[in-house]
Amino acid sequence: MPEAVSAPDVRATIGASEFDRDTAVVRRAPGVYDTDLSAGWTIINAVNGGYLLAVLGRALADALPHPDPFTVSAHYLTASRPGPAVVRTETVRTGRTLSTGQASLVQYDDDGEEVERIRVLASYGDLAGLPDDVRTAAKPPELPPLEHCLGPDDGPAPIEGGSAITDRLLLKLDPATLGWALGQPSGKGEMRAWFGLADGRDADPLSLLLAVDALPPTAFELGLSGWVPTVELTVHVRCRPAPGPLRVAITTRNLAGGFLEEDAEVWDSADRLVAQSRQLARVRLG
Amino acid sequence: MPEAVSAPDVRATIGASEFDRDTAVVRRAPGVYDTDLSAGWTIINAVNGGYLLAVLGRALADALPHPDPFTVSAHYLTASRPGPAVVRTETVRTGRTLSTGQASLVQYDDDGEEVERIRVLASYGDLAGLPDDVRTAAKPPELPPLEHCLGPDDGPAPIEGGSAITDRLLLKLDPATLGWALGQPSGKGEMRAWFGLADGRDADPLSLLLAVDALPPTAFELGLSGWVPTVELTVHVRCRPAPGPLRVAITTRNLAGGFLEEDAEVWDSADRLVAQSRQLARVRLG
Repeated sequence: MPEAVSAPDVRATIGASEFDRDTAVVRRAPGVYDTDLSAGWTIINAVNGGYLLAVLGRALADALPHPDPFTVSAHYLTASRPGPAVVRTETVRTGRTLSTGQASLVQYDDDGEEVERIRVLASYGDLAGLPDDVRTAAKPPELPPLEHCLGPDDGPAPIEGGSAITDRLLLKLDPATLGWALGQPSGKGEMRAWFGLADGRDADPLSLLLAVDALPPTAFELGLSGWVPTVELTVHVRCRPAPGPLRVAITTRNLAGGFLEEDAEVWDSADRLVAQSRQLARVRLG
Repeated sequence: MPEAVSAPDVRATIGASEFDRDTAVVRRAPGVYDTDLSAGWTIINAVNGGYLLAVLGRALADALPHPDPFTVSAHYLTASRPGPAVVRTETVRTGRTLSTGQASLVQYDDDGEEVERIRVLASYGDLAGLPDDVRTAAKPPELPPLEHCLGPDDGPAPIEGGSAITDRLLLKLDPATLGWALGQPSGKGEMRAWFGLADGRDADPLSLLLAVDALPPTAFELGLSGWVPTVELTVHVRCRPAPGPLRVAITTRNLAGGFLEEDAEVWDSADRLVAQSRQLARVRLG
């Protein structure tokens, strides 16, 4: 008999992990879901936008006849807070291979007034039903091995902003894109990292919605500091991810007029491009 | 007195052009607009997706307190037909610098049943109010001079598919991305073109919504033929375009599982990146 495995070796499974627990939604009525936004996925005091997208994505997966998000477009309206929230979904169209839904996440202010946080349009399908063909010109990002990349706990220059979400993630950044953490931003709008969930849960289409918005903002490498709130984020899930850590590369090319776009690519351990996203974000120019 | 100018020299102005006439919406009630989808913006028999986006964008510009589309996310549900349509808008949130709205374009089938064609989420602002800062790493596409690029009327190898929309557009493609028209697709998912409106109307934020979806699909240069229907398209308008023809570059990197992404960049005559878009489209693999 093998010895009982020690805690760090116990890997959480899909369906039984911190991510699944904290993105759970409970259907109260058709198209109405209760949820509780966890304080465990915050950066400083803001709830992470990718985590919120996963909560909405889970409600839509229940509401729509197809299981997997193919394309999700989210407009962020007001800043979410940890605590109770309600997701309302609407089935817009049901087709054979794709169905389209809308979802809205609301919370209540101190006066009990409803405040909408995010509104989403999404088209869902079945990734398992897609043909295997791949004709891609895209190449995986070049990253040092995971053990040569740096996370929030790695010295001698720990990444600032010890936020709760860092405890939930396995996030190891390419040292070549960590100049900002040493006060020497590269000026290039690029960041690359190994990405996983800290409890070892493998990636699935829902956790890819988190992965596209989980790195520090590219704006840091552009020499900007401070908050870069997302106005809109659209993600395409292109393939069911293979087990193992993901590689995420984010890029900003055009910072202008106080706004920037941030593109993300997510690659799995089988070298498949599993998700692409683009967001429009506001920057504070200091 | 100068002689009366001949027809080809008369340039249509913003507000008085084919594009303005054919994207006009008439407010019937708050948030309800009548429109008539013109057969002049069709490819074969399909109404162009960028033209439809401009119709929706015009209704939202009327409905929302801010004038310019900053980010518009559209999910295409069913194929639109030339003829009467109704746009319904909802104001989701009104802020100081941005407001967010939703719009839906519907038509009626032979039984008088309402059929939704497109649903859109959009955040609007005021491009004229943005600061002038530009810190971009993006470079304009390299294109031969307009007179060395080829349009549908240029021999010896005219572009196939004489569709009504080609009469509305000044569209001159880089010969380097025209292999598909000669039966020799490059295999690269790239196309580049000079773009304008045939009647000489200058570009504005609304016509940029058309520009991002007006070129032949990148799929043609990948060696695919046939229809590539858009599932979702999101456009960011980043800057008010200067007068003069635009340059549009579209790129596909990842064709997999019967879907592809198509990114568009639109540059103005002042070398400003004025719009970026990405769409997810379905491909028929032969």
